[in-house]
Amino acid sequence: MRPDTVDTCCPPLLAAALSVGDAEVLAASFKALADPVRLRLLSLIAAAPDGTACSCDLEDPVGKSQSTVSHHLSVLADAGLITKEKLGRWVNCTIVPERLAELRAVLAS
Amino acid sequence: MRPDTVDTCCPPLLAAALSVGDAEVLAASFKALADPVRLRLLSLIAAAPDGTACSCDLEDPVGKSQSTVSHHLSVLADAGLITKEKLGRWVNCTIVPERLAELRAVLAS
Repeated sequence: MRPDTVDTCCPPLLAAALSVGDAEVLAASFKALADPVRLRLLSLIAAAPDGTACSCDLEDPVGKSQSTVSHHLSVLADAGLITKEKLGRWVNCTIVPERLAELRAVLAS
Repeated sequence: MRPDTVDTCCPPLLAAALSVGDAEVLAASFKALADPVRLRLLSLIAAAPDGTACSCDLEDPVGKSQSTVSHHLSVLADAGLITKEKLGRWVNCTIVPERLAELRAVLAS
């Protein structure tokens, strides 16, 4: 457990009863991970050199249209799991491992 | 990372591109965590003595009816996050920390 990262989100799930507010914040984060296309996009971005991938290289591997991929990337970015940098009609996406570490800490026993 | 537990579910999200099948299994697990009421129920069960709570003691803290609580407990049980033991009209729920450890391992970098 790393309290420095947990403080930015929520206390560990198993430590004490969660408040309504913390539970809502945390549920929104897990919702971003609760979709197979988003999980595959996240793993593709993480596996790319420097954890950064152009959205143009993500459509074929997941077999989805540009607009669908764009929507899912926005959900991941809103949840703080990736950052996006506009690049003409595409975006460069970079994984945010610290955000995954926060969620991992929440699941710590 | 603990390969012994990861093997029962999915490879780490950040290690390589996830397969469609693994992504679907994993998304279903995160979906169980993607609801504030379920997260609060899970934290209440974990915080109870021996990580076991009667469903009769969960309705008031989350402010939901017996049928709503029962539905959410079934979702948690289906995802392997708790076990349920019938006790007349109630159920005794026990946290499964190993399942949370599996999800934690998936989020490991």
